Amino acid sequence: MGKRCFLSSDISPNCSAFNSFRMERDGNPNVMLELISSDFSLFVFHPSVLVPRACCLLLIEMVGICKQDMLQKKKNAVLVDGVILNGPIMDSKAGEKFVEEACKIIMEEVIQKANDVTEKVCEWRAPETLKKILDLEMRDTGESHQKLLQLCQDVIQYSVKTSHPRFFNQLYAGIDYYSLVARFITEALNPSVYTYEVSPVFLLVEETVIKKMIEFIGWEEGDGIFNPGGSVSNMYAMNLARYKFCPEIKEKGLSGLPRLVLFTSEECHYSMKKAASFLGIGTENVYFVKTDERGKMIPEELEKQVQRARKEGSAPFLVCATAGTTVLGAFDPLDEIADICEKHGLWLHVDASWGGSALISRKHCRLLCGIHRADSVAWNPHKMLLAGIQCCALLVKDNSGLLKKCYSAKAAYLFQQDKFYDVSYDTGDKSIQCSRRPDAFKFWLMWKALGTTGLEERVNRALALARYLVEEIKKREGFQLLLEPEYANVCFWYIPPSLRKMEDGPEFWQKLHEVAPIVKERMMKKGSMMLGYQPHRGKVNFFRQVVISPQVSREDMDFLLDEIELLAKDL
Amino acid sequence: MGKRCFLSSDISPNCSAFNSFRMERDGNPNVMLELISSDFSLFVFHPSVLVPRACCLLLIEMVGICKQDMLQKKKNAVLVDGVILNGPIMDSKAGEKFVEEACKIIMEEVIQKANDVTEKVCEWRAPETLKKILDLEMRDTGESHQKLLQLCQDVIQYSVKTSHPRFFNQLYAGIDYYSLVARFITEALNPSVYTYEVSPVFLLVEETVIKKMIEFIGWEEGDGIFNPGGSVSNMYAMNLARYKFCPEIKEKGLSGLPRLVLFTSEECHYSMKKAASFLGIGTENVYFVKTDERGKMIPEELEKQVQRARKEGSAPFLVCATAGTTVLGAFDPLDEIADICEKHGLWLHVDASWGGSALISRKHCRLLCGIHRADSVAWNPHKMLLAGIQCCALLVKDNSGLLKKCYSAKAAYLFQQDKFYDVSYDTGDKSIQCSRRPDAFKFWLMWKALGTTGLEERVNRALALARYLVEEIKKREGFQLLLEPEYANVCFWYIPPSLRKMEDGPEFWQKLHEVAPIVKERMMKKGSMMLGYQPHRGKVNFFRQVVISPQVSREDMDFLLDEIELLAKDL
Repeated sequence: MGKRCFLSSDISPNCSAFNSFRMERDGNPNVMLELISSDFSLFVFHPSVLVPRACCLLLIEMVGICKQDMLQKKKNAVLVDGVILNGPIMDSKAGEKFVEEACKIIMEEVIQKANDVTEKVCEWRAPETLKKILDLEMRDTGESHQKLLQLCQDVIQYSVKTSHPRFFNQLYAGIDYYSLVARFITEALNPSVYTYEVSPVFLLVEETVIKKMIEFIGWEEGDGIFNPGGSVSNMYAMNLARYKFCPEIKEKGLSGLPRLVLFTSEECHYSMKKAASFLGIGTENVYFVKTDERGKMIPEELEKQVQRARKEGSAPFLVCATAGTTVLGAFDPLDEIADICEKHGLWLHVDASWGGSALISRKHCRLLCGIHRADSVAWNPHKMLLAGIQCCALLVKDNSGLLKKCYSAKAAYLFQQDKFYDVSYDTGDKSIQCSRRPDAFKFWLMWKALGTTGLEERVNRALALARYLVEEIKKREGFQLLLEPEYANVCFWYIPPSLRKMEDGPEFWQKLHEVAPIVKERMMKKGSMMLGYQPHRGKVNFFRQVVISPQVSREDMDFLLDEIELLAKDL
Repeated sequence: MGKRCFLSSDISPNCSAFNSFRMERDGNPNVMLELISSDFSLFVFHPSVLVPRACCLLLIEMVGICKQDMLQKKKNAVLVDGVILNGPIMDSKAGEKFVEEACKIIMEEVIQKANDVTEKVCEWRAPETLKKILDLEMRDTGESHQKLLQLCQDVIQYSVKTSHPRFFNQLYAGIDYYSLVARFITEALNPSVYTYEVSPVFLLVEETVIKKMIEFIGWEEGDGIFNPGGSVSNMYAMNLARYKFCPEIKEKGLSGLPRLVLFTSEECHYSMKKAASFLGIGTENVYFVKTDERGKMIPEELEKQVQRARKEGSAPFLVCATAGTTVLGAFDPLDEIADICEKHGLWLHVDASWGGSALISRKHCRLLCGIHRADSVAWNPHKMLLAGIQCCALLVKDNSGLLKKCYSAKAAYLFQQDKFYDVSYDTGDKSIQCSRRPDAFKFWLMWKALGTTGLEERVNRALALARYLVEEIKKREGFQLLLEPEYANVCFWYIPPSLRKMEDGPEFWQKLHEVAPIVKERMMKKGSMMLGYQPHRGKVNFFRQVVISPQVSREDMDFLLDEIELLAKDL
């Protein structure tokens, strides 16, 4: 019944018979048939494909008809290396229809369900099971639009709904409609931000956003750049501080130099170690400074570490303070740290990736008191403010071109100096990246939509909700707060009924350590919510609830506690 | 006529009177009025806002009505720090409507116009003019949806249309509908790829794509990760090679070690210098190897440089070959370079960011002959294959966990070891990033849609079009090819009529040098096309035409040459 068919590169003009045939076959994965353009078409059969005899006969007949048409029209047809070069090879109408159909699914399955608490946060499947469900393999021939739309549905179904009101698992959550629109525009325009000629709007937007963020830090002037992640921003700062300390490192490298040493708190983000390793400084040259019981760097301990480094003959160059630590949400005392940096001539970088958004709140900006004394600041509006992953700025106080001097490689093919416009707008040479996404744009559109007041409300409300949760935890039996939070991280244990009467001791803590992973497994398999847990500096596994505001309410805070009780009552 | 109004935090239940009022005021930027949820509403007036008296009276009356309703319903209202915590603070219906309206604009203004050659490639405005046109400032109060939609229109209008068939300016171009859908899904789901619990689908997709790319390289096994740019991939490789050479560098850093030296060709991408500087190796320790007249590294010259480094007592550790150089599109002879690397025990990295896609073509993969002998490869499917910016893989031959050992920082809050699933799927610790985008997904969906054959066609057609262009350039008076291209970069001069009879000499070249910038200015101001130019290694400004296939045709190649003639005829 089947016959191998090797009709390749048969040229045919676009004709209605062909189109209707194509429609009919669209759902059939055995036949790969592509409409190349509105003027010309190409039948491509992969040699391994079995085409039914009836289908072949029909096709051969059609090709005959088409070739006749072709003869009349092909005066401009050009064939090079067996490839037809006339007209583009995309069927843009079919493509646009596919985009429209897919957008409908995205609208219905993701955007409209974003705030619906009756939906699951996740539809958990173990890796091996999920591999079987999703048709992951990429094949020689393409799939039909129908099959692709089903794939899109599956991808959405089995992905975690990070915008769900009960997704508390990371330092980002929720959906912002304005940022989302900006991101759709970005994807459709597909720009790269390095030169004004290719990205005029996005470069001006980035300049404006950086200027505005600098205002909130309290600097009179400055510079900055958006990067793919706070970790990368921290690396930029570390390299910049090193360049300032010793510009020759750019050309000569670190070999033969004294050991460079930097200081950060025990509670800092793990990117500090990654950065020190990547930059050739070495993780052992990150001196960790002790923190107090709330997770804040102790300035006296910093002073001691600097003294120690000096005594060892190493070269201290940088202090990385943290404004909003990852686990506890602690803020280092920036003013006192700045005093020490001034005294010792050290660059002060503040990793405010998480806590920076408090600067927007007139009520809570005091958490970052002294930040204007920093030399550089990392701040991720994609976290508390919902600008969408990723939106991360490194801001630099220096306005003498340090960023550019430190990073430039002066590629002549991109940054020509004989352009017809002011090439100071070609900011790409400030970056370690070549192609770079316009991440400032989504923050800008969101800010335009909400105004500073709207952003401020997000911060104020998150912290009020965290406060509410803390008070509820204090009231409920079995819940125990790890510490009074400063910010939106609420850390606590849940002690299940069977452990409540146990004596305090290693056995109690060992048993308590096992509670959070079990509760996490149960909540994920049920799909009711997602919440992080971790052991931390000698403390056994505890929950970390991260409150990000626009999508959540008091009811969700209550739900969280009820649900933990429900999931853990038999433990 | 106006009156300052300070009604803040007045709570009111949702009532139809309020909603209808809200609709009426929506277009008026003087009044900021936010519907907080479907259950409660909050009027927020910024103190600086002037509200007309009539409006105030109406509002006060409404607030009165609302408060009465409120009294009956507010038994669950919770107020903390002056913030109402009941219900989310987003009007999701209005948000969804905004997304729908914006998507319509994106569809009509970007996607449907993508292939239309009658549209302009760019609507050029000088920076200062564009600043005046765009309302860039971010204010305390937000803008109406109507204003925001206009802003979106403006952003689109003044952005460069990189998907336009006559955008030849960079190593990316065009639009792929499948990749675009995947990117819209990504933005709507807003995932971060580090742990299986948060990104189950995207981690499995990344694993599958990396495995498939490794097949095309010709390795039996391997590892890999997607990064924000080929520059970053090259940095990863450099750091990985260094770690393999001396694992202690991760902890100890480079201080006190002999000078590490790496080798790359004179034609390499500028990210090599950026990487060496960033990683603390120093740009002077990048030894540039001479290339032949086609831009290919000369193996004998590499051998000489390695010998030189050894004699100097430095520590050679890495050769970075290039497969598809940025300007000339040259491919280094990988097999011969691999021989030298083997002989000297050097890591071989191939920067195939641009040329890697030729691996998909059975006809053109010979350009990368010997790539299976590399230790690592950078390959950007966002260039020739249209996966969308950014889509960049670093692929590593080692399968013993080198990537993870080199990069891990073991953050306990993210990579808990007592999770209920196989934590080997938590691949985030292989990265220098913390949050990371699922860039493999767009490539995967596109590959599913087109099949390998469809991707192959893109490459074959691009190179056939480039070949066509070369032959046309040879035929036309005034055009002069720089060299016979191997790939899709066609480099040429246009010699305008007035220079054609000049004698060859410094004056001729100086005048020719000035031609390309003028033609570029003219084409941009006209908006007819965009094409790169640069001086390069002693050669005066020439055009670099980059051919990427699905959207362009022979007609666009002809247009390009006609248009240059037209724009430069008076020069």
